[in-house]
Amino acid sequence: YGRFGLDYNENNDRVGNIASGALNGRSETNITSRLRLQFDMSTETDSGVTLGARFRAQAESRDNAPGGAAFNGARFFATYEGFTLQVGNIIGAVENATGLYLETRTAGVGIDGAGFESIVTNVNGESFNWDAYSSAGVGANGVEVLYAAGAFSGHISYSEDNGLPTSASRVAANMAYTFGDWTGAIAVQDSDLAFEDKTFVSISGDLGQFGVRLAYADNDGIDKWGLYGNMDIGSASNILVYVTDEDAVSAADVVAGRNDNRDAIAGSNNREGTGYGIHYSYDLGGGASFEAGIRESSWDNTTVQAGVYFSF
Amino acid sequence: YGRFGLDYNENNDRVGNIASGALNGRSETNITSRLRLQFDMSTETDSGVTLGARFRAQAESRDNAPGGAAFNGARFFATYEGFTLQVGNIIGAVENATGLYLETRTAGVGIDGAGFESIVTNVNGESFNWDAYSSAGVGANGVEVLYAAGAFSGHISYSEDNGLPTSASRVAANMAYTFGDWTGAIAVQDSDLAFEDKTFVSISGDLGQFGVRLAYADNDGIDKWGLYGNMDIGSASNILVYVTDEDAVSAADVVAGRNDNRDAIAGSNNREGTGYGIHYSYDLGGGASFEAGIRESSWDNTTVQAGVYFSF
Amino acid sequence: YGRFGLDYNENNDRVGNIASGALNGRSETNITSRLRLQFDMSTETDSGVTLGARFRAQAESRDNAPGGAAFNGARFFATYEGFTLQVGNIIGAVENATGLYLETRTAGVGIDGAGFESIVTNVNGESFNWDAYSSAGVGANGVEVLYAAGAFSGHISYSEDNGLPTSASRVAANMAYTFGDWTGAIAVQDSDLAFEDKTFVSISGDLGQFGVRLAYADNDGIDKWGLYGNMDIGSASNILVYVTDEDAVSAADVVAGRNDNRDAIAGSNNREGTGYGIHYSYDLGGGASFEAGIRESSWDNTTVQAGVYFSF
Repeated sequence: YGRFGLDYNENNDRVGNIASGALNGRSETNITSRLRLQFDMSTETDSGVTLGARFRAQAESRDNAPGGAAFNGARFFATYEGFTLQVGNIIGAVENATGLYLETRTAGVGIDGAGFESIVTNVNGESFNWDAYSSAGVGANGVEVLYAAGAFSGHISYSEDNGLPTSASRVAANMAYTFGDWTGAIAVQDSDLAFEDKTFVSISGDLGQFGVRLAYADNDGIDKWGLYGNMDIGSASNILVYVTDEDAVSAADVVAGRNDNRDAIAGSNNREGTGYGIHYSYDLGGGASFEAGIRESSWDNTTVQAGVYFSF
Repeated sequence: YGRFGLDYNENNDRVGNIASGALNGRSETNITSRLRLQFDMSTETDSGVTLGARFRAQAESRDNAPGGAAFNGARFFATYEGFTLQVGNIIGAVENATGLYLETRTAGVGIDGAGFESIVTNVNGESFNWDAYSSAGVGANGVEVLYAAGAFSGHISYSEDNGLPTSASRVAANMAYTFGDWTGAIAVQDSDLAFEDKTFVSISGDLGQFGVRLAYADNDGIDKWGLYGNMDIGSASNILVYVTDEDAVSAADVVAGRNDNRDAIAGSNNREGTGYGIHYSYDLGGGASFEAGIRESSWDNTTVQAGVYFSF
Repeated sequence: YGRFGLDYNENNDRVGNIASGALNGRSETNITSRLRLQFDMSTETDSGVTLGARFRAQAESRDNAPGGAAFNGARFFATYEGFTLQVGNIIGAVENATGLYLETRTAGVGIDGAGFESIVTNVNGESFNWDAYSSAGVGANGVEVLYAAGAFSGHISYSEDNGLPTSASRVAANMAYTFGDWTGAIAVQDSDLAFEDKTFVSISGDLGQFGVRLAYADNDGIDKWGLYGNMDIGSASNILVYVTDEDAVSAADVVAGRNDNRDAIAGSNNREGTGYGIHYSYDLGGGASFEAGIRESSWDNTTVQAGVYFSF
C-alpha cells in the first residue's frame, strides 16, 4: 500500500526533537510517506499443508528523513487446518494481541501512527520492546505457533537473540475469545532482557455503528490504561477518540537503571500522565481514504497529520 | 529495461579518471550495464482522482564498478483531469523541461549517457545541480504540480533539503508550447544553494525524417549553447550529431569559491569551450536496439560506447 | 524458492566457529532459512536473438545471523540458436561444470549446503575461489559464452577484477559429453590470483533408480577425490551418500603463504583427509520436499540439518 501526507510535529524544529532543544533550522511541518510492496509466495503439499513465505520492500519518509526502500527479513510458514507454524521474522504474540492497536488504517493516529502513543504497552520511552514483525529490518528471527478454531484464537511465540554478549530469549503468548459482540483478550511476555515482562488485557465491543474498547497493561511495574471509542458518521466517515493514562515508574527501578517517566523530576522523559487523540477517516472509494489525526502525548507533544492512504 | 555494452574511456586507466593521473592498472575499456525494474501501483477513487506510486530497483555497472541493485525513494501522485500532484522523489521542473536531453534512448550519447556532456545545464563540473528524479537514491523529497492541456504544458516543483546545517530550498518551473512542427520551452530554477540559479530555453523542430534543436542555458552566469540534429536513415536507423559551447566562469565567482573552468589556468577543470558527439541507433525489433556513440567533451575526454538496449 | 529448517553445528557455540574456541554463549542449534525471488526479463529481436536479464532478491538466516534481503548484481544475456553470450554477474565455467555439485535440491548436504564440503574444488579453506554466479553480491562482472548441441556442451568464461591494486583476470572453460547413461566432464581455470589454477574431471552415471558419480580436482597442487551414490526408495524418497578425500598441501606452498591443511601441524586447518555425508529427501508434492542431512567434514566438524524446501 501507499500513503502520503503532511506531518506537523511541534518539536521537529528542535534538536533532539524535544521541546527544550535548540532550534535546528528545520520546519515543524514535513512530508510523511510510505510505499510498501509485499511479496507473498506459497505452495500446497499433497497432504494439505500450505508452505509459504513473505517479504516486503518499503520506502519511507518520516520526520525530515527520506529513505530508499529495502527488503525486510523473510517469514516462512506452514499451515495445516487451524494451526500455523511460522519461522523467521515472526509476528509475535504480544504484537498480535487482539485489542492492542487503534481501529484505524494506520493502527495509530494520523497518517504514520504519530509515535503509537495510544498503545498501552508503550510506556516510559520503552516502545516496542516485544517481538514484532519488522517491515524494515530483519525482525525477531523466532518461531511461533498460531491456532484458531471458531470463537477462540491462541498464539505462542519464542525468539532468541544471538546478537548480544549472551543470548537472550523472549517467550510470549496470547489468547482471545469472542462472545456475541464482545471480545476479550490477554497477552503475556516473559523476557530475559530488563523491564520487558508484560501482561496485557483488553475487552472490545463491536456495537454496529459504535466501537468501544478498554485496554490495560502492566509493563514490568508500570500500569497504563487506555479507553477508545469510534463511531461511523454517514456511509463513508468514521471518527475515533481515545485517552490513555500512564503510571509513574518506581524509584527502585530508576535506581536499577530504568528510564524515569515521573513528572517534575529533572532529566525525566515526563511520560507519566494522560495522553489523548482524535482521528478522522473518510472513504474515497477504490481502496483509498483520507486520514487525519491530532494527538497530544502524555509528555505534552502535539502532532497534526493529514493525508491519503491507498491499497493496490 | 536493460542495457549492456562496452565503454572505452581514455581516462579509465588513470587515477582520478583525469588525463594527468598516474596509471591505475585498469583497462580503458570496461563493461557498462544497467538493469532497471519499475514498480507502478495505482488506484482510482469514486470521484475520479487517480492515486498511485512508483519505485524502482536498479543494478548498474559503470566505469569499473559493478553494483548490486537497490530500491530508490518512492514517488506518490494524485491525478485529476489535466492536473497531477506529485510528492516524494519528484521529477523536478528543470529535469522535465522539453528539449533538455538528447533524442536518444539513453538521453545521452552511447550506452550509458557518457557523462551527459551534451546537456546545456551541465557546466563547470556542477552537473545535475537541480531537482531530478533519482533512480538510485532517495531523490529530492519535494512537491510538484504538473498541468497539460492541448499544446500547452506547465510544471512547478519545490523541494526543501533538511539534511544541511540549515534547510535549503529549490523552486523551479517550466512551460512548453507546441505550434505545428515546432515546440518552444523555458525553465527556471531558484535555489538557496550557491551557483544553482538557472534559466533554460529551447526550440525543437520535428520535420518528419529530420529533427533539429537549439538549446541555451544561463547557469548562474555561465552560458552554454547546444545545437542538435538527427536524421532517420532507412526504416530502422537514426543518426544524431551535436555540438555545445560553454563560456568561462567569471573571476569573481572563482574567488567566491566556485569551480574554475577556464582553459589555460592551472587547477582548472578546463570545461570551457567546445564539445561534440555522434550517436547511431539501429532498431533490432521486439523493443531492442543497437546503440553506439562517440563524444569528445569540452575538457578533451573521449569516450566510445556500443551495446544493446532493450525493454520488457 | 524458499526453505527453512534447523541447523545443528557442533561449533556454533564456539568463538570463531572452531572446536578449540571458547564458549560464546550461543546455541549449537539455530534456524537456517533462505527466501529467494528471481526476476527474469527477456525480449526477442526480429532476427531471432533473445535478449534478457536476471536478478534476484534473497533473504537469508544462517549460523546465528538473520539478514534482510538485497538484490544481487544483474546478468544480461543474448541467445541465438545454441549459443548464449552472458555479461555481468556470470555463472562461470567451473561453477557450471557437470558433476561438480551434489544431486540434491540444495546442491549440498542438509538444508543450506552445510559448507559444501562435498565439492572437490573446495579444499584447504580456499572455498569458492572461482568465478560463480552470486545471489547475494555483485558477482564476477565478466563475460562468458555457452554452447550446446545434442550430447555436447561447452562453456568459456572470462572476468577481470578491477577492485584490486592491479587488475586480475580469471579464464575458465568446461566441456561435457553424454554417451548413453554416462556423462563425462572436464573444467579448467587459469587465474592471476595465487593458488587458483584448477583442473576438474567427473564421470556420472544415471542408471534409472541409481545414480553414481566420481569426481576429481587438482586444486593448484592439492588433489581431492569424491565418490557419490544416490538411490530412489519407493516413489517419493531418495537417499544420497558420499565420501571425499583431500590431500595435503605441499610444504613449499605453505612457505609461499598458502593455508596449511596438514593434520597434526600446529595452526593448520586440518582439512587433509576424509569427509563424508548422507542426505535424505522426501517429496511432499506441490513442489515442496522434506530435506535432511548429516555430514562430517575432513576437519572433524559435524552438522545435522533438517527442514523443508519449496518452489513457487
